Amino acid sequence: MSDTPDAPAYLDPLTGRTWPLDAPRWCAEADADGDRRPLLLTPLPGIGREAIDPAAPGLWRYAAALPFRPAAPITLGEGRTPLVPRRFAGGTMHAKCEWLMPSGSFKDRGAAVMLSLLREQGIVSVLEDSSGNGGAAIATYAAAGGLRARILVPESTSPAKTVQSRAAGAAIALVPGTRQDCADAAEREGEARADGIFYASHNWHPFFLQGTKLLAYELWEDLGFRAPDNVIVPCGAGSNVLGCGIGFSELRRAGQIESLPRIFAAQPANCAPVARAFLDEEPAAAAPTIAEGTAIARPIRLREVLGVLEESQGGAVMLTEAEIAAATLALARDGLYVEPTSAQAAAAFGRLLAAGTIAPEETTVVVLTGSGLKATPRIADLLGVAG
Amino acid sequence: MSDTPDAPAYLDPLTGRTWPLDAPRWCAEADADGDRRPLLLTPLPGIGREAIDPAAPGLWRYAAALPFRPAAPITLGEGRTPLVPRRFAGGTMHAKCEWLMPSGSFKDRGAAVMLSLLREQGIVSVLEDSSGNGGAAIATYAAAGGLRARILVPESTSPAKTVQSRAAGAAIALVPGTRQDCADAAEREGEARADGIFYASHNWHPFFLQGTKLLAYELWEDLGFRAPDNVIVPCGAGSNVLGCGIGFSELRRAGQIESLPRIFAAQPANCAPVARAFLDEEPAAAAPTIAEGTAIARPIRLREVLGVLEESQGGAVMLTEAEIAAATLALARDGLYVEPTSAQAAAAFGRLLAAGTIAPEETTVVVLTGSGLKATPRIADLLGVAG
Repeated sequence: MSDTPDAPAYLDPLTGRTWPLDAPRWCAEADADGDRRPLLLTPLPGIGREAIDPAAPGLWRYAAALPFRPAAPITLGEGRTPLVPRRFAGGTMHAKCEWLMPSGSFKDRGAAVMLSLLREQGIVSVLEDSSGNGGAAIATYAAAGGLRARILVPESTSPAKTVQSRAAGAAIALVPGTRQDCADAAEREGEARADGIFYASHNWHPFFLQGTKLLAYELWEDLGFRAPDNVIVPCGAGSNVLGCGIGFSELRRAGQIESLPRIFAAQPANCAPVARAFLDEEPAAAAPTIAEGTAIARPIRLREVLGVLEESQGGAVMLTEAEIAAATLALARDGLYVEPTSAQAAAAFGRLLAAGTIAPEETTVVVLTGSGLKATPRIADLLGVAG
Repeated sequence: MSDTPDAPAYLDPLTGRTWPLDAPRWCAEADADGDRRPLLLTPLPGIGREAIDPAAPGLWRYAAALPFRPAAPITLGEGRTPLVPRRFAGGTMHAKCEWLMPSGSFKDRGAAVMLSLLREQGIVSVLEDSSGNGGAAIATYAAAGGLRARILVPESTSPAKTVQSRAAGAAIALVPGTRQDCADAAEREGEARADGIFYASHNWHPFFLQGTKLLAYELWEDLGFRAPDNVIVPCGAGSNVLGCGIGFSELRRAGQIESLPRIFAAQPANCAPVARAFLDEEPAAAAPTIAEGTAIARPIRLREVLGVLEESQGGAVMLTEAEIAAATLALARDGLYVEPTSAQAAAAFGRLLAAGTIAPEETTVVVLTGSGLKATPRIADLLGVAG
C-alpha cells in the first residue's frame, strides 16, 4: 500500500473525506450527534479479462480488482458458483446459485475478502453481530484464517441458528433486547476495541463490499465477458445491490462493458425501507416476514443503495408473504432449494416480467443467496408438514 | 446407441453376461434363489483432456466419458467443486468439497447423470429408497428434469429429514420396519414396474456410478491433469470408491495417467462390512453410528468395492465414534462444516498419516461428501448445545 493521492482510500460518501487504508477503520468518526456513518472506498479502476488469474481458487481469480492483494488469502474455494438458465414464471431466468458456498450463502464472498484483507493488516480478532448468514460466514472464514471471532446475537435467537457459528469456534454472546439493540451493542464494542478486537461487520466494513462486488466480475465472465441486461437481488442491508453497483461500475470504468445492467432490489412488503424509498411510498413499520435475511428495518447504506438502483435504471419490488412463499416452493419444485429470502428475487422476476419492465428476450440474472438447508422448519411449515 | 459388439452394455460382473443399454434395466434377472444382482457397465475407453467440453456446465464438461450423451442433460450446475489444500492432523490434505452441490451432497453427480441418461431413454417416473442424501439428490434432479419421483423411507424417519425431498415434489411413502425392509420393498416395486415407474436406485443403477466416476476426471483436472497419490472417501454402499475406481481406470486406459491412486475407504467401526472384509476381520453386527450416511450393513456391491481397494493398493480404515466426532468438530473449526459421515474421511487421513501408510509429501485427496447443514441437531449434540 502507498498513500499517494491515487492510492485506494476509505471514503465517506456524504462528505467526500478520505482516510488511508493502512490503518484499519470501520466507520467515519461519529458526528456531533454521535452518529456514525458507514464508509466506502474511493473508486477503483477495475480490471479487464487479461488481469484474471486462472490459477487462483474461486473468486480469487479476480484479486487484481481488490484495493490490495493479500499475500495469503483465506480461501475455502468460495465463488465460481453455477449460473443456470431455468424456466420460471413464463420466462427464462439465469439463476446464480450463490448458496453453493462453503457456509451456505453469498456472504462468503464478502467474508473471505474482508477477513483476508484485515488479516493482512494485522487484525487477529474480530467482532460481528448476526444470527444469520452473515454471522455464519464471518465465523467460517475466521476459523479458516485462524482469527478469533466474537458474534453478538439477540438473546431470543434459537440455539439451532447459531450451531454453525459455534461449531466454527466463534464465541456467541447473547444480547438482551431487539436485533437493533444487538447492532448498537456491537457498534459500542467496536468503537471501544477492547482486547484489540476489531468490528468486522458485514454491514459496516467497506472491505465486505469488495468481496460482494466480485459477483459482478463473475457474472461478466459467466456470460462470455458481457454484462447481463438485468440483475435481481434479494435486498436487506443491500450488500449485493452495492456489490453489483461497485463491480459493474468498475468494469465500465475499465472499458469492459458499455453500461451497467439494471439492478433490481427485491424486498418483503413487510419490511421494505429501500423499496418504499425508491418507489416514493410512505415509510411503514416493519412486520414479521418469512424472508428473514432481508428483514432490515434501518439499512445503514440506504442512500447509496438507492443511488445504485437509480444510476442503473433498475428498480425495487415489494413482495407479499404469499408471493415469497409461492416462489420458495416453485423454486424447490424445480430443484432449486433455497431460503425464502432468496426466493424473493425469483418472485420479483415474475412480477417484472408480467409488468413488462423486463422483457423475456433480455438476459436476467436472479441471484439466489442462501441455502434451503438453513430454513428446514420454515419450509416444512410452508409444505404443511412437521419439520 | 448401437448394439455393435463394442457398444457399451450392462454387465453382470459375476457372470460376465451383458445386456444392451437400449432397454432400461436396473439389475440382472433374479437367480434360482430369487436373489437379484447389481450391474455395472462394460469397461469404457475413457477420455483425454482434448475431449473435455469447456463450455458445458459443471461436470458435463466430461460428458464424452459417459456411455452415451443425453441430448438435454438435467443440470443445476453440479460438479466443479473446490479442491482446497488445508492443514489437518499434522499434514496437508486436499479437501474435495463435494457438499457444495445443489442438493447438499456428492450424490448430485450420480443423480444428475443417471436421471439424464434414463430420461433420454424415455423414463418419466422414478422410484428410489433413501431418507438421506441419495433421496434428496434423486428428488432434486427429478424435479429439475420434470420427472415424477416416489421415494420410500422407513416409517421411523423423522419428518425433518424428508422436507427437502417433499419440497422438490417427490411423493414420500413410509414403509413399516427397518431400512432393509424399505430397500426390499423398493426392489419388489422396482421389479413390478407398476404404472411404468422405474427403480432409479442410487445403489443399484450402474448409471449412478457413471456420475460418481466423474469425480475422478475432475480430480485429475484439478491437479493439472495428474492423478493424486491417494484418495480417501467415506464408504457406505461404496459409490465413491467404485466411481473413483471406474473413473481412474478409464483415465489409465486412455493413457492419461500411469497408475491408479490408492483408494481408501473410511467406515464407522460400528458398521464396517467393507473394512472388516478388507482387513480380514470377523463380521460384526451393526451398531448405531453418528456417521449415518455410511451405516450400510449389507452393501450390495461389496465384492466390487473390495476389488477397487485391492487393485488400487489402497485400504480401509475403521473409525470409532469418538474419532468421527472429533474430526467433525476439527473440520468445522477449520471452516469446513460437513456431516459426521464426511468427517470420517478426514479422521482416516489422520490415522493413515500417523501409521505411515501415506506420507506427508504425497498428494492426498479427502472427499468431504455432505453438508453440515443437514446435520444441525447432531452437531449441536456434539457441541453440547441445544440444536
